[in-house]
Amino acid sequence: MAATGWPGCANSLKGVILDMCGVLYDSGGEGGDGVAISGSIGAVEKLKASDLQLRFCTNETQATRETFVAKLQRLGFDISVSEVFPPAPAAVAVLKERGLRPHLLVHEGLLPEFDSVDKNNPNCVIIGDAAENFSYQNLNEAFRVLIDLEKPVLLSLGQGRYYKETDGLKLDVGVYMKALEYACDLKGEVIGKPSSMFFQSVLNDMGLQPHEVLMIGDDLLSDVGGAQQCGMKGVQVRTGKYRPSDERHPAVTADGTVDNLAQAVDEILNRRGH
Amino acid sequence: MAATGWPGCANSLKGVILDMCGVLYDSGGEGGDGVAISGSIGAVEKLKASDLQLRFCTNETQATRETFVAKLQRLGFDISVSEVFPPAPAAVAVLKERGLRPHLLVHEGLLPEFDSVDKNNPNCVIIGDAAENFSYQNLNEAFRVLIDLEKPVLLSLGQGRYYKETDGLKLDVGVYMKALEYACDLKGEVIGKPSSMFFQSVLNDMGLQPHEVLMIGDDLLSDVGGAQQCGMKGVQVRTGKYRPSDERHPAVTADGTVDNLAQAVDEILNRRGH
Repeated sequence: MAATGWPGCANSLKGVILDMCGVLYDSGGEGGDGVAISGSIGAVEKLKASDLQLRFCTNETQATRETFVAKLQRLGFDISVSEVFPPAPAAVAVLKERGLRPHLLVHEGLLPEFDSVDKNNPNCVIIGDAAENFSYQNLNEAFRVLIDLEKPVLLSLGQGRYYKETDGLKLDVGVYMKALEYACDLKGEVIGKPSSMFFQSVLNDMGLQPHEVLMIGDDLLSDVGGAQQCGMKGVQVRTGKYRPSDERHPAVTADGTVDNLAQAVDEILNRRGH
Repeated sequence: MAATGWPGCANSLKGVILDMCGVLYDSGGEGGDGVAISGSIGAVEKLKASDLQLRFCTNETQATRETFVAKLQRLGFDISVSEVFPPAPAAVAVLKERGLRPHLLVHEGLLPEFDSVDKNNPNCVIIGDAAENFSYQNLNEAFRVLIDLEKPVLLSLGQGRYYKETDGLKLDVGVYMKALEYACDLKGEVIGKPSSMFFQSVLNDMGLQPHEVLMIGDDLLSDVGGAQQCGMKGVQVRTGKYRPSDERHPAVTADGTVDNLAQAVDEILNRRGH
């Protein structure tokens, strides 16, 4: 299919932020590396060869940045740890800033990200995509920490509904955030996309203004809607969790829709006369 | 403490509906019978000796009516199966009426209640208090059934947030209903308290009008609020999941608050000149 729509002002574009799962690769589930999406490895290479700044922004919370980036490198992507922004390091900054000591309901692969954090006598709960760790017992434990706090604080590493692995759809962290919100009659704070604070931390690292940056993702609400809320343009790819109904969503309209990352990068570079 | 407030019109009172867990007994958790709440066995006897009709209305969904009533009898209560109204039989009636074939996410103890129901090629999901069965895998399975349906139907056997067992607070079915609602962007239908349809089925069995019946429970929203919505009076006991903050709840005010069931029954019978 042809690209549908496209953000104007190609000349003001100075940087690109890419979502990862569903844009670069399809997830392989527990233990599997997944597979690169056709054309994405070359598209990242082309962006890196251009004068545009490039960052990767993901709600991945099943592994540390190091493990996650190593997986992408095995798939063939030229990506380094310093270019990748997942929620956990952002959460660690929030914890230290606010003097919070977390009870962690996360995937065991993520635990090392919190090594430097005091977890004694917890005064908040952090949930990530804990997958199999979302047992009844573990959810009860997180619930009891919250219900016993005078001012319960729930930090959620994303608010996704579900994602697709090679063996089927899987429930995402947002579902369990809503469960604990209802159980404790509170509102969780999202760290990760679509939080503007999270996108802003990536823009700060790039040293760019929102209108100078384009976000490309497969999730209409978290990637495109979140970027737009922050003042960026947002383009959706028709890979990953994309659904045709996204193109007539009542609340969020992408600034452009393309078949895949390769097409998006061609559109970007053609408009800049590369 | 003294009783606080009391519904008027003692002479029009013809029946009483009692909640069970937290009013008659405190739950003992997996495998345990729990313990009778002091004075409750005698209070049930007094009501049975009066000219008032008596029914029991519970959101219990971890066991069949037969198993559940046998437990109450072991604790010393004079209760028979025909007097007890839990959500599962009401759900079976709804399934048959609407031609629905359920995927069940319930406690294994409840499964026999659905023996007569066609469960092939499911076109709805029923969740009860599945407890340990609320695993990530089981929740994913229920989610996939719903997300694949053109018109997904989620029936929830209650909407409680949590309950207390002797070893601590446990998450209740409502929390997982909210989780699936968010995952699938739908609204579940509650069968059980506080649904008016559910209370009405008990009133039908009694052959009484709502204003002739008093509901007594420990859950301000499900028991008292639900009964009031249905046109009954609702009295809260200060046992079970009662919290002092219930007495200044912004939305629901009980028609009376008493220390326990024994005090409630004395108030009822004294006012009738027994």
